[in-house]
Amino acid sequence: MPYVNIKVTNDGVTPQQKQRLIEGTTKLLVEVLDKDPATTFVVIDEVDTENWGIGYDQVSELRKNKGD
Amino acid sequence: MPYVNIKVTNDGVTPQQKQRLIEGTTKLLVEVLDKDPATTFVVIDEVDTENWGIGYDQVSELRKNKGD
Amino acid sequence: MPYVNIKVTNDGVTPQQKQRLIEGTTKLLVEVLDKDPATTFVVIDEVDTENWGIGYDQVSELRKNKGD
Amino acid sequence: MPYVNIKVTNDGVTPQQKQRLIEGTTKLLVEVLDKDPATTFVVIDEVDTENWGIGYDQVSELRKNKGD
Amino acid sequence: MPYVNIKVTNDGVTPQQKQRLIEGTTKLLVEVLDKDPATTFVVIDEVDTENWGIGYDQVSELRKNKGD
Amino acid sequence: MPYVNIKVTNDGVTPQQKQRLIEGTTKLLVEVLDKDPATTFVVIDEVDTENWGIGYDQVSELRKNKGD
Repeated sequence: MPYVNIKVTNDGVTPQQKQRLIEGTTKLLVEVLDKDPATTFVVIDEVDTENWGIGYDQVSELRKNKGD
Repeated sequence: MPYVNIKVTNDGVTPQQKQRLIEGTTKLLVEVLDKDPATTFVVIDEVDTENWGIGYDQVSELRKNKGD
Repeated sequence: MPYVNIKVTNDGVTPQQKQRLIEGTTKLLVEVLDKDPATTFVVIDEVDTENWGIGYDQVSELRKNKGD
Repeated sequence: MPYVNIKVTNDGVTPQQKQRLIEGTTKLLVEVLDKDPATTFVVIDEVDTENWGIGYDQVSELRKNKGD
Repeated sequence: MPYVNIKVTNDGVTPQQKQRLIEGTTKLLVEVLDKDPATTFVVIDEVDTENWGIGYDQVSELRKNKGD
Repeated sequence: MPYVNIKVTNDGVTPQQKQRLIEGTTKLLVEVLDKDPATTFVVIDEVDTENWGIGYDQVSELRKNKGD
């Protein structure tokens, strides 16, 4: 019955990438802990870069400054 | 001072249904644990079916396949 | 597929009270949103009063001051 | 390596206010616990007032009633 | 800068199994989304079976009844 | 009505340090967003270093290797 929450910045993650994250995480829990995939939840949160901070700054600002 | 977070898929939950979830959860905490409703928070997160996985797959895909 | 997280202070919640919280929350989601109980998770976190703050103060200190 | 999640109601928080929350929280963790800002994350969630309940009611409804 | 939270029941997960979960999840985020492992956090929560409910019941009780 | 969750590694954080985190975070929300401290919650989670991963590895192992 694992529950996994993945938070990433909102950078145009595609449905296919989401599917790979869900499948890969579930496989990992089955392989490492023998969990039942039928009751393994994976929830992905996409967070605006303006709402994510690291090293005192918003990711949105860090990217502007780095030309990233 | 309880804090409750309810995550459900984003399926057109109405304001009235949200109100019932908030009221019901708060009542439960008052009845079972004698908590003060004035400091009982209930936060509802609605998650896109594309971002919720169960049994290796996205809920969005599971519904397509089941004609659900 | 709802996921519910209930955070309460660690005040000797009994197994029976936990069972009532789990049962009541699940029933609410079935009644209000027609969710499947077989894939409804409820996770209870018990938090030390020293680690929970409200109104600038730790709950542990608030209780000392109020003789509560 | 702290991770901080700040949930507030979705009331037009400006990018500048978000930046101040991120900077202030990170400074606090550096000052109090000597944490490395380079691996201090702050994630802000803005929650619709319809999805936040307190004292049995949705914040959206409480504000209507109070003319707030 | 992903943040991943894995919640599992508290069933004697070994340090080696935790390491495999951390390594596997981080690899997945690097492969699928090209994330920087240096700022990828994985936090594992081990939850008492008494505090985890599914299908109206505590996992602790479900296991007793199933001789599991 | 903000809710703040601070996750740090379990490194002997003292009650005084916790109080400073709670007070500082609450002040920040009052100053930046004019929130009511009476309904501002701060919850601190202390996570075992064995359960926190960064850069593919457990913090417990990283510290051994660095003599930290």
